[in-house]
Amino acid sequence: MGDTELPQEKAANQPRGSLFWVIPDGYIPPDSRGELLSHESICVLNCGNHAARLSIDIYFEEREPLEGMIEVVEGRRTRHIRTASLEKAGERIPVGVPYAITVTSDVAVIIQYSRLDTTQPELALMSVMAYPV
Amino acid sequence: MGDTELPQEKAANQPRGSLFWVIPDGYIPPDSRGELLSHESICVLNCGNHAARLSIDIYFEEREPLEGMIEVVEGRRTRHIRTASLEKAGERIPVGVPYAITVTSDVAVIIQYSRLDTTQPELALMSVMAYPV
Amino acid sequence: MGDTELPQEKAANQPRGSLFWVIPDGYIPPDSRGELLSHESICVLNCGNHAARLSIDIYFEEREPLEGMIEVVEGRRTRHIRTASLEKAGERIPVGVPYAITVTSDVAVIIQYSRLDTTQPELALMSVMAYPV
Amino acid sequence: MGDTELPQEKAANQPRGSLFWVIPDGYIPPDSRGELLSHESICVLNCGNHAARLSIDIYFEEREPLEGMIEVVEGRRTRHIRTASLEKAGERIPVGVPYAITVTSDVAVIIQYSRLDTTQPELALMSVMAYPV
Repeated sequence: MGDTELPQEKAANQPRGSLFWVIPDGYIPPDSRGELLSHESICVLNCGNHAARLSIDIYFEEREPLEGMIEVVEGRRTRHIRTASLEKAGERIPVGVPYAITVTSDVAVIIQYSRLDTTQPELALMSVMAYPV
Repeated sequence: MGDTELPQEKAANQPRGSLFWVIPDGYIPPDSRGELLSHESICVLNCGNHAARLSIDIYFEEREPLEGMIEVVEGRRTRHIRTASLEKAGERIPVGVPYAITVTSDVAVIIQYSRLDTTQPELALMSVMAYPV
Repeated sequence: MGDTELPQEKAANQPRGSLFWVIPDGYIPPDSRGELLSHESICVLNCGNHAARLSIDIYFEEREPLEGMIEVVEGRRTRHIRTASLEKAGERIPVGVPYAITVTSDVAVIIQYSRLDTTQPELALMSVMAYPV
Repeated sequence: MGDTELPQEKAANQPRGSLFWVIPDGYIPPDSRGELLSHESICVLNCGNHAARLSIDIYFEEREPLEGMIEVVEGRRTRHIRTASLEKAGERIPVGVPYAITVTSDVAVIIQYSRLDTTQPELALMSVMAYPV
């Protein structure tokens, strides 16, 4: 079978997307009500066969960035990473503070950001595709 | 009438968009309350005159992908495909599990993803344009 | 003052954006509760000095498209067009039916789509930038 | 260490994004209920080392634009700017009126727009990446 007859399904097994992604509106809601916990997720898809090593930087309004938090997404896998779980040398993203996120990957990936807010009794959802540079 | 005078309306009858689309944040809420059922939709528009054959792949966090679920969108039609309806050899997307979606089409289409969540008593909506590669 | 010294503010007075925009997930919620009415809006910004003439086409799942609904957005103005107000020869978009929207403009514009849903007692919001082709 | 060995983290210290961003759907909800105030934010990330000077223009449906509101985002910082706080010569964006936003920056930045609406008793969230031109 020649290259021109590559089956439609196999074309999806290559790395896809971009190496650098930005989410300007990060915020971990400090409160939750009801059965669902307020949270944010950085949702990553790695379409390729090789693991992607992500370096996540967090920018704030009034202090130096928190840089170089490392996460791995295996090949042909997705990971929905809770921002509250990110940690470097014991430091985490503070809750209730506006911040921004950049993700640098060594393999092309696609990233979407979603937030679930249950601060008031019922839930609210927002989601954006991250911005690739 | 020459090509340079193509009426504004007719320009829309060509295939438009991209052949490969990605939605990293897929999730079928396991619970519903009230009159509306929690669900997700992959909303596809086929602007062209010929049917589009979609091959949908589902990626997970801890298992091999579920690949090659086929759907068709006729020419000059939209389809809002419920992810819970996708099926291949009796296998469906499990509820309550984070996953990611890729859609490969043989004709250029445009894809948006929306989720309605009624897990808590009132509804929440989120929507993103899928990411074209 | 030369071209290279064009003030930052004046650069925004040119037409900006794209001539063709797509919104695959259209839906007019049939019900409303509380003080806010369920609705969708096609939000258009015309940064240029000349009026933009929009031709809006509506695609359905099981019937021929409803084509060529005309709206105008004056220069240096925005319009947030309610989809329920669109009309051609007495025909309107039916409520409670999945559909898709394309907008063709004769001047570059930028388009965002937002939906407010008050079907259940509290409100839900979703918004996407339309997809430019 | 040569250029080809630039550490992954340092690549993020350059200016990133675009100089002109558009948000067609602006709206400051006039009412709030519960503990959270209805508001909109223009969320800006400046990845570079130098301060970005933003000039923000507001477009309306039936009057001339309100132009040239200036804000600054320092290098390696984010700012989540409340639209209700924008002001020029004593003039502010009126509440309850549809409008559109453009942001012109002298340094590449990335911009996301989010709205929290608590008009009805519970909250609703929407968010979009602004449109770069």
